Amino acid sequence: MTEISTLGEFGLIDHLTKNFASRNASTLRGVGDDCAVIDNGGNRTLITTDLLLEGIHFDLRYVPLKHLGYKAVVVNLSDIYAMNGTPQQITVSLGISKRFTLEHIVELYAGIRLACEEYGVDLVGGDTSASVTGLLISVTAIGEADPDDIVYRNGARDTDLICVSGDLGAAYMGLQLLERERQVAEGVKDDTFQPDFAGKEYLLERQLKPEARRDVIDELRQLGIRPTAMMDVSDGLSSELLHICKASGVGCRIYEDRIPIDYQTAIQAEEFNMNLVTAAMNGGEDYELLFTVPLTDHEKVSQMKTARLIGRITKPELGPCLVTRDNQELPIRAQGWNAFDSMHNA
Amino acid sequence: MTEISTLGEFGLIDHLTKNFASRNASTLRGVGDDCAVIDNGGNRTLITTDLLLEGIHFDLRYVPLKHLGYKAVVVNLSDIYAMNGTPQQITVSLGISKRFTLEHIVELYAGIRLACEEYGVDLVGGDTSASVTGLLISVTAIGEADPDDIVYRNGARDTDLICVSGDLGAAYMGLQLLERERQVAEGVKDDTFQPDFAGKEYLLERQLKPEARRDVIDELRQLGIRPTAMMDVSDGLSSELLHICKASGVGCRIYEDRIPIDYQTAIQAEEFNMNLVTAAMNGGEDYELLFTVPLTDHEKVSQMKTARLIGRITKPELGPCLVTRDNQELPIRAQGWNAFDSMHNA
Repeated sequence: MTEISTLGEFGLIDHLTKNFASRNASTLRGVGDDCAVIDNGGNRTLITTDLLLEGIHFDLRYVPLKHLGYKAVVVNLSDIYAMNGTPQQITVSLGISKRFTLEHIVELYAGIRLACEEYGVDLVGGDTSASVTGLLISVTAIGEADPDDIVYRNGARDTDLICVSGDLGAAYMGLQLLERERQVAEGVKDDTFQPDFAGKEYLLERQLKPEARRDVIDELRQLGIRPTAMMDVSDGLSSELLHICKASGVGCRIYEDRIPIDYQTAIQAEEFNMNLVTAAMNGGEDYELLFTVPLTDHEKVSQMKTARLIGRITKPELGPCLVTRDNQELPIRAQGWNAFDSMHNA
Repeated sequence: MTEISTLGEFGLIDHLTKNFASRNASTLRGVGDDCAVIDNGGNRTLITTDLLLEGIHFDLRYVPLKHLGYKAVVVNLSDIYAMNGTPQQITVSLGISKRFTLEHIVELYAGIRLACEEYGVDLVGGDTSASVTGLLISVTAIGEADPDDIVYRNGARDTDLICVSGDLGAAYMGLQLLERERQVAEGVKDDTFQPDFAGKEYLLERQLKPEARRDVIDELRQLGIRPTAMMDVSDGLSSELLHICKASGVGCRIYEDRIPIDYQTAIQAEEFNMNLVTAAMNGGEDYELLFTVPLTDHEKVSQMKTARLIGRITKPELGPCLVTRDNQELPIRAQGWNAFDSMHNA
């Protein structure tokens, strides 16, 4: 018998889905991108789905239910934007154990509703059930895109420029901060470290109430930039770069000194004695957009307020590498968050 | 604080979704039918989703994983057919606890794949994660329909005829049989009853490997019948009749002697000393299609091989009633399966 953790999430999905052939002409893209793409005539329909499980993806000892509801929606909308689409609808399925009351679920829905209002999406369905233990949330987002607008992961070409929005590593630092606070509060760690959240609000917000980067999509359109490849940063920059390189059949060079990092993230990394670049490259849950553009768009992307240039696409034989400040080339390896590993580490 | 079981599943959904307004012109129908209906130009897109949780919806002590995978897909396809649509794609999300190996999940996927092949649908995405306890499956099905073909729950009109496909109550009897077998095997019940599955294959098949009634949709088209209202029977005939009556603002008369029941179901009800009509009306998990047609289609529906006439729609003030063999009128009450009650009874 084979333990699932030996394959990891992507290995498992590859293994399970490799024998599924597409039958319908309406299925333009199946497994393997941020969204599936469906053609029923007219504009394309985009579909993406994410599962959030208590004890695996969230810890209600420090995550407020309203924030959880908001985040559960936003992480799905992020996948729609990552295809250059517009989210329109969501479905929300809940499994609810006996320890939750109606008031708890109303609080969760307040966050879901707020996200629907902020992003202009409609709640159109779902399923609600008791669960034996804990809370689980399964959200599916449905989006729309003009056929010519859709951006896949596999369109990056040699000499393209690589850009990323916002900054990286802050959500991961926020999680470390919350986790440390919990351990101190519960007396698990007999530690002189007493977390003080003052001045660290940004890190907590990035972890607890992330936003999907609709503004990046808007700015790209305003500047007339059409990315050649795009995806959102959920598992960490390293993991996503490897996805784009593999899907597009290319290599890349990312410049360490170009990786966007907020000063609060940097201060926190020092306080925790963590490697800052490792945290920024592998922390995950940033929900920023990673995209590539043709070299000829260099001037346009330089004007962007929401994103910055961090590297370039290369020929495949050069592989995906990080170029350090002292000009060393380090191969990029996936150290993204793996729910099956975390299960074993928990 | 309010216990969720006091509202029941439909009460909870009503309570949570009542303040969600629709914003997008593409959202033609949201919560409250078998599927959401989306208009991105071209044909309509139908979306439905179902959650299956271990310990609530299935018991792996007697449900083979391959059958479970098959059923998880089929129950969603049934909702697409219930809108008179054609299922095209599914997404499958899994939460998997440590006690499952790769071989288990491969078996589950064998059932998912078989359902995809049988019904011509494509697996286009999903999410896979560890879970703290047990197995959970969240399937979303995506279908397509010509705008003029879609059938909602709210179109039934006074004098319409009510029809149902196949037969009712068998899946419920199959579940009772399996549950009894398990208790005997585990010595929970010191019972002289020794289940013998010979001659009861139909009941087990209805519970373990239900089918979605594509053939009913095909026959309706061949005969040129367009139902005025339709839904699938998942929670039980009583519950579904109340949904149609409420959504359409009508009453109904169902004739006890017209309710289709297989002889194995009848024999089993006698063996278990259960009321047969109650089991057929409230057992659930039949995945048959319940639909109404104009009175003028009487001759056409009489020819149907896959469905039969069981009653008629009335004016709303007459309410929904069952007409017994001795011509009494009994008000129909929802006794459909409620996951939140079952949690409390478990």
